[in-house]
Amino acid sequence: MKLYDGGRAPNPRRVRIFFAEKGIPLPELVPVDIAKKEHRTEAFTRLNPLQRLPVLELDDGTALAETMAICRYLEALHPQPALFGSDAKEQATIEMWNRRVELGLFASVAAVFRHSHPAMAELETQIPEWAEASRDQVDDHLWLLELQLAGSPFLCGEVLTVADITAGIAIDFMKPSRIPLPEEFAQIRRWHGELSARPSWKA
Amino acid sequence: MKLYDGGRAPNPRRVRIFFAEKGIPLPELVPVDIAKKEHRTEAFTRLNPLQRLPVLELDDGTALAETMAICRYLEALHPQPALFGSDAKEQATIEMWNRRVELGLFASVAAVFRHSHPAMAELETQIPEWAEASRDQVDDHLWLLELQLAGSPFLCGEVLTVADITAGIAIDFMKPSRIPLPEEFAQIRRWHGELSARPSWKA
Repeated sequence: MKLYDGGRAPNPRRVRIFFAEKGIPLPELVPVDIAKKEHRTEAFTRLNPLQRLPVLELDDGTALAETMAICRYLEALHPQPALFGSDAKEQATIEMWNRRVELGLFASVAAVFRHSHPAMAELETQIPEWAEASRDQVDDHLWLLELQLAGSPFLCGEVLTVADITAGIAIDFMKPSRIPLPEEFAQIRRWHGELSARPSWKA
Repeated sequence: MKLYDGGRAPNPRRVRIFFAEKGIPLPELVPVDIAKKEHRTEAFTRLNPLQRLPVLELDDGTALAETMAICRYLEALHPQPALFGSDAKEQATIEMWNRRVELGLFASVAAVFRHSHPAMAELETQIPEWAEASRDQVDDHLWLLELQLAGSPFLCGEVLTVADITAGIAIDFMKPSRIPLPEEFAQIRRWHGELSARPSWKA
């Protein structure tokens, strides 16, 4: 296996943290420099026509793109610890929270980054109105997280799941997107502090 | 079980088609009229704070929201036919295509609908610039689908998977979003015609 990796970008980090939480050693890493547009070369486009990172290349040449597809592949090969849940209800609940966070907070923060950060102006056609509308959504998404975290140590109960990785990375992504995390989100601060202290978070 | 249902809206249809393709009888349906803003009542907000449809309420009172979480719950309870794939590589490939289509074509068409359709003006703060940027993306997403469908009858091979349901619904959703499907997409037309003829598609 080879992992085409994008350094500090959020999705490559999600996958490396997932490897670390599963206790699976990272495969050979192939660094792809997004700032140098290496994800837009012809060779990389053959691996992933969407020109996105990360991509896991299997030994038979299959190229798996999409962060969650890569994580599910690892979960199927190495079921323990179960980061996508065990029984049907637990799996569905974790999927629900992972999606709520990914399509909500994560997507809004990413839209602010892509459509307002000066460094992205060269890679994207920026729409300032969309950046502002997305920024306005962030508070609601944070409250959803805050209330859920008031009831348990992690988003879906007593142990870390893939939903916590997605949510934690979304919070990290607020910094380069220049969105402050208000003081009032005490549960998020408690949980994010604990996440950041895990060895996996350095991945 | 009870399924809080939103009629012709795309996500409720995805779940009903999934039930039909699995051969699982639909549970009690609770119609929620989006046009009458019934998804924004206090009672419904308790079920799903994001005020979105569908929601599957289990007999123990658990409310499962998010289309894909509901579908995965059904897949875990009734593994055959496997609409999310069987072995690790198949599951990851189907997840990759489902996400490519959902975060690509489906999301772009939905953005055009939400940000440009007159009927949505009352429910959304519309940003015409975002509708136009999303409309400009649709062709690229269609080409990705077209090329993939040139190689096999369905998106991930010889049999229908959840990725075909997502993609087929995205194509259906182009009509109310007022996006024509150009003649040149012959593979999409072939495949979408076959999908539409399946009994499940009437769900």
